[in-house]
Amino acid sequence: MSANTLGHIIRFSSFGESHGSAIGGILEGLPVGLELDYAFIQTQLARRRPEKASGGTPRKEEDAITWLSGIKHHKTTGAPLAFLVENRRQQPADYQALKNLYRPSHSDYTHEKRFGMADLPGGGRSSARETVSRVVAGAIVHGILKKHNISISAAVTQLGPVKADVSPGDIHQETAQNNIYGFADPEKTTEIARVLKALRAEKDSTGGVITTIIRNVPPGLGAPIYHKLHADLGAAMLSINSVKGFDLGAGFDAPQMKGSEHNDPFRKSADGTIRHGENRSGGIQGGISNGEDIYFRVAFKPVSSIGKPQYMLTRQGQIEEHTIKGRHDTCVVPRAIPIVEAMTALVMADHLAWKKSLEII
Amino acid sequence: MSANTLGHIIRFSSFGESHGSAIGGILEGLPVGLELDYAFIQTQLARRRPEKASGGTPRKEEDAITWLSGIKHHKTTGAPLAFLVENRRQQPADYQALKNLYRPSHSDYTHEKRFGMADLPGGGRSSARETVSRVVAGAIVHGILKKHNISISAAVTQLGPVKADVSPGDIHQETAQNNIYGFADPEKTTEIARVLKALRAEKDSTGGVITTIIRNVPPGLGAPIYHKLHADLGAAMLSINSVKGFDLGAGFDAPQMKGSEHNDPFRKSADGTIRHGENRSGGIQGGISNGEDIYFRVAFKPVSSIGKPQYMLTRQGQIEEHTIKGRHDTCVVPRAIPIVEAMTALVMADHLAWKKSLEII
Amino acid sequence: MSANTLGHIIRFSSFGESHGSAIGGILEGLPVGLELDYAFIQTQLARRRPEKASGGTPRKEEDAITWLSGIKHHKTTGAPLAFLVENRRQQPADYQALKNLYRPSHSDYTHEKRFGMADLPGGGRSSARETVSRVVAGAIVHGILKKHNISISAAVTQLGPVKADVSPGDIHQETAQNNIYGFADPEKTTEIARVLKALRAEKDSTGGVITTIIRNVPPGLGAPIYHKLHADLGAAMLSINSVKGFDLGAGFDAPQMKGSEHNDPFRKSADGTIRHGENRSGGIQGGISNGEDIYFRVAFKPVSSIGKPQYMLTRQGQIEEHTIKGRHDTCVVPRAIPIVEAMTALVMADHLAWKKSLEII
Amino acid sequence: MSANTLGHIIRFSSFGESHGSAIGGILEGLPVGLELDYAFIQTQLARRRPEKASGGTPRKEEDAITWLSGIKHHKTTGAPLAFLVENRRQQPADYQALKNLYRPSHSDYTHEKRFGMADLPGGGRSSARETVSRVVAGAIVHGILKKHNISISAAVTQLGPVKADVSPGDIHQETAQNNIYGFADPEKTTEIARVLKALRAEKDSTGGVITTIIRNVPPGLGAPIYHKLHADLGAAMLSINSVKGFDLGAGFDAPQMKGSEHNDPFRKSADGTIRHGENRSGGIQGGISNGEDIYFRVAFKPVSSIGKPQYMLTRQGQIEEHTIKGRHDTCVVPRAIPIVEAMTALVMADHLAWKKSLEII
Repeated sequence: MSANTLGHIIRFSSFGESHGSAIGGILEGLPVGLELDYAFIQTQLARRRPEKASGGTPRKEEDAITWLSGIKHHKTTGAPLAFLVENRRQQPADYQALKNLYRPSHSDYTHEKRFGMADLPGGGRSSARETVSRVVAGAIVHGILKKHNISISAAVTQLGPVKADVSPGDIHQETAQNNIYGFADPEKTTEIARVLKALRAEKDSTGGVITTIIRNVPPGLGAPIYHKLHADLGAAMLSINSVKGFDLGAGFDAPQMKGSEHNDPFRKSADGTIRHGENRSGGIQGGISNGEDIYFRVAFKPVSSIGKPQYMLTRQGQIEEHTIKGRHDTCVVPRAIPIVEAMTALVMADHLAWKKSLEII
Repeated sequence: MSANTLGHIIRFSSFGESHGSAIGGILEGLPVGLELDYAFIQTQLARRRPEKASGGTPRKEEDAITWLSGIKHHKTTGAPLAFLVENRRQQPADYQALKNLYRPSHSDYTHEKRFGMADLPGGGRSSARETVSRVVAGAIVHGILKKHNISISAAVTQLGPVKADVSPGDIHQETAQNNIYGFADPEKTTEIARVLKALRAEKDSTGGVITTIIRNVPPGLGAPIYHKLHADLGAAMLSINSVKGFDLGAGFDAPQMKGSEHNDPFRKSADGTIRHGENRSGGIQGGISNGEDIYFRVAFKPVSSIGKPQYMLTRQGQIEEHTIKGRHDTCVVPRAIPIVEAMTALVMADHLAWKKSLEII
Repeated sequence: MSANTLGHIIRFSSFGESHGSAIGGILEGLPVGLELDYAFIQTQLARRRPEKASGGTPRKEEDAITWLSGIKHHKTTGAPLAFLVENRRQQPADYQALKNLYRPSHSDYTHEKRFGMADLPGGGRSSARETVSRVVAGAIVHGILKKHNISISAAVTQLGPVKADVSPGDIHQETAQNNIYGFADPEKTTEIARVLKALRAEKDSTGGVITTIIRNVPPGLGAPIYHKLHADLGAAMLSINSVKGFDLGAGFDAPQMKGSEHNDPFRKSADGTIRHGENRSGGIQGGISNGEDIYFRVAFKPVSSIGKPQYMLTRQGQIEEHTIKGRHDTCVVPRAIPIVEAMTALVMADHLAWKKSLEII
Repeated sequence: MSANTLGHIIRFSSFGESHGSAIGGILEGLPVGLELDYAFIQTQLARRRPEKASGGTPRKEEDAITWLSGIKHHKTTGAPLAFLVENRRQQPADYQALKNLYRPSHSDYTHEKRFGMADLPGGGRSSARETVSRVVAGAIVHGILKKHNISISAAVTQLGPVKADVSPGDIHQETAQNNIYGFADPEKTTEIARVLKALRAEKDSTGGVITTIIRNVPPGLGAPIYHKLHADLGAAMLSINSVKGFDLGAGFDAPQMKGSEHNDPFRKSADGTIRHGENRSGGIQGGISNGEDIYFRVAFKPVSSIGKPQYMLTRQGQIEEHTIKGRHDTCVVPRAIPIVEAMTALVMADHLAWKKSLEII
């Protein structure tokens, strides 16, 4: 039982708060001899930190990782792999104003209700900074999936009101990298720029949707009851800041379909491989992968920190209108792509290990 | 690590398969002296088993519960509360035909890929029959929530193409009970009947959406990282058979909103209580309850077992068109209401216990 | 987190109380296709239930197992394997007297302090009857060890004041079966009979020590820190009723040795196999098996239920002298042999699965 | 499931290896607002690191703790409390010789059999250095026990052949601090000095026994089955390096006793408190505390690293006689006292939280 750990066999535990000296994490249950791809880790971290794109704030955080344990000659040793990333500015001046305010739709209020300590401005444990650790961990276990030829590709398919006119199968690993907004439909780049510019002018923000596709998944991963593969994926996605929804395959479009429309009839491909119709199931049936591509959507709410005046609660219990100064992200969804990929990698690697654990007779 | 257990402190483990002699479960971590409300348990079981409603098959399963342990004088003893419900017909004749076939969008194929035993027709572990155990467990822990004045109300808000014209706040505990389809918008009952009749005639099926609202939730339940309250709720919902999506609050409508539209500004009610705007957050911010009602949607795909001919895979690896004989449910969503309520109760009670565990200094 | 579950991947959860309708358990994480050896299960149960031997009470409990799930064609299916054994006499007349008394060195008093329900005579959850479930579970996973050629042999090496003059290597699978007291040193059978007869005459009881040896353990099982192989074995043994001590290898004799005496210098056997000196380490070094036989001792206190008058606490808070009527076991240690073997099998199979889970690259 | 985590609700996870850049750990499930007693933490660390005493090597490691997260104003925030301690000399020259050798009774060989990487001299994950983290964690949760007035006192009661002539009740918190060897019987100090001097001259080592007493334990802590309070204590102790045995109360002396001798008849103290005879049970009955002092013994084997020539295995598979140069500890048992106290504190605080989690109705 841990509020800070994800996974069954391959487990990731994170620690750290925005106001503390460092954040970091521990990966356990890794196979021995897994090589670390430092360049890939940094690539994924950089994608989380786009300096100028998409309305992201130009704040420059360097994510220099200190490797604490579990690595020798750039390979995993089987010991817990621990790492940390230092926090540069522990209590930024521009956050001092927040010490007396609970911001709307933020975790300020609920965090105090749970933990009872009110002077932790900047998000504390709930800060998006914690996701740096997730990206590092995900990029490491990505190496396991690579050995199994499994690939994960995520891209933004909705940004505010702009929806990509693509299907999940159109998303490839370079899709998001090729677009400044990580958007799956490059024809809409100008439209997005216009939307974001207008929002920035209004000091407002917006949300979006990320669609992920996992290719070359072997059939037979998952479990039939409480840890269905998509239940574990869903829990992992819903654990990301600002996520409000998750669906698999036809998802929220499935309810209005007929069974005969939604079902994936068996067929054979030219080379004799068993295939499942149009894959409306999204690659998982009964909680277990069927060998088709797994695809799912993750819905992000608009950034709650905006530059407009809003009614806030003061520490003294008053409702007052305040404007939070400083930089605000207009839309963080493009920066969430590597986080979604990381959480996906952690779940998939864990289920590979879980299945393996049964093969003892 | 268990594929069959849900929860951290209050934990529910289920066992049983459709072809076995019984299904059942174990509840652990319960407080001592919790009284069992047998009538409520049976009410919830009956709601899962509507004899004639909503296209449900008229099959009559009696769910007589054998209490095995953990109860004395109708109260919990602190020992694991185990129970079972016998399966009447262990290998029904009408399922024999399935022994050689993998049905589309069913768990037949994936279950074999995971577990490698092919002659378990009728869904095996993946059978919806397992949800009987969930309903029993949920109804038991419901008693804990009642002591905290927390109520859970779920109703169907979409059945196939018919959508209820209500908001979550319109759903109350009697809402679903008052309608033959558990539908939140009684004015659409005739329309639903017509849709279901047509589908039945076509030997087809459809899906739906259940919306749940939890009232009187104390602020401060949940956790900020991997076990956010809605991540645990989402995982619990996605573990229900046929569920393809979950969203909280504004959910999949949030991405296209502006921050200023989605945010819940603080205000005070007449009696001085702190309130959160329009509650678009759905009662949870930063993974922790804020004291507002929690509401979320669960999307169900159409029933995959239909009476139409479909392309199936034979055990010999051939693709053949087959028609599955026997009764088929046209729509199971109304019957899923007590299951959704049960899973909700288990998650909420568990988080109450989790919070309590910290209060030791 | 569960008070009723043992193991990491291969997990056993038990339920049931002496006063309830049944006891039983659930085994999870088993490989698929493991054949059940019903005869071996019954043999182990019978060893726990010696009708006349060793001062055991002549009470005849039949342990007819109802298999609830997880088995098909006598093989495991990968679903949770659940079973139960009915309790015949739920509230035996001879236990009624106990409703008002807390017996010395029994769990009556502490159980009430933890769970607060005082009218559960006969040991409730703490009753030795729960060990029936352990024996069944252990006998099942024994089948996994057999595939790996691992054998487990336990025998009594001390019964009251009588100590066996043997070394652990002298204990073989038939050792305990060949002796009415499960004693490792048959020359002392008459002496034991005499000791037990005298104790029975005095209405007193005694304890003993069981020594276990595990042969053909592959090197590399275990973990270096909190789940050292002997820490998991020790926890499993200390979870058995009446157990007060556990030691591995030289154990409590190690403290007074010199390093040069205790160390196991490397050597090679005739066939070139690497061996470890006199194996004073007991087959485990740094928490991980080294390929030598694992051996350990388990110390049992005397049975606390005796027929002599003792000072007891009444429910009204008085200290009174009482004599508990009815049959009493003079020594239960011989009957604990299959329980020790079962717990050993569960730990070893679990660690086999754990190691396997790492082999994914 | 984690090989590196101890506890159910209050959980401690450690990371780090002797050859890595740092060791450290994460404490979770702590109550909010627990004040850190830095002086006590350093006191306990210093006790683990006696510069000149008891044959300990004069090596000077400074244990400067870097607090990474979970603390604000010197109190716990409810977020994971992470810390690290840097390793000064990552690959000491004097360990280079070990790269080609497996030492007898060391973890070199077994670690490689489990993890397959052979060039991690100095113990790697199995190094005693990991226990620094345990001492820090234990000293932190000690603050919880203090609020409940629970005290933990450990002392050496056997050092090599020298046995203390004291009973557990004679051990108090200052007992070990008042003696250079942490020995419970100060009259034997000279004898111990003589024994250690002789061993040092022989370049040999020895072991010992630590006895721990926990006072003011409320009745009702623990669990009746697999997490009996003494099973959790035993597992925690057996997870300490070099520990080969654990017993509670009369322990390994219980088997030869009669029930009438071992049983703790109820009596009342002058002030009306319920007491349990001579407390041969060691304060736990049926896995649950009875309110008496808990006491237990932990047996340590002699240090395996000795300066004498020994037969070792080379990486090339040869058996060769070698002598390991450098400083060797003659006896580490005195230094293990704070480690035993730390593990005790972690288990006790965890069970306090566990019991609290049930109090929700």
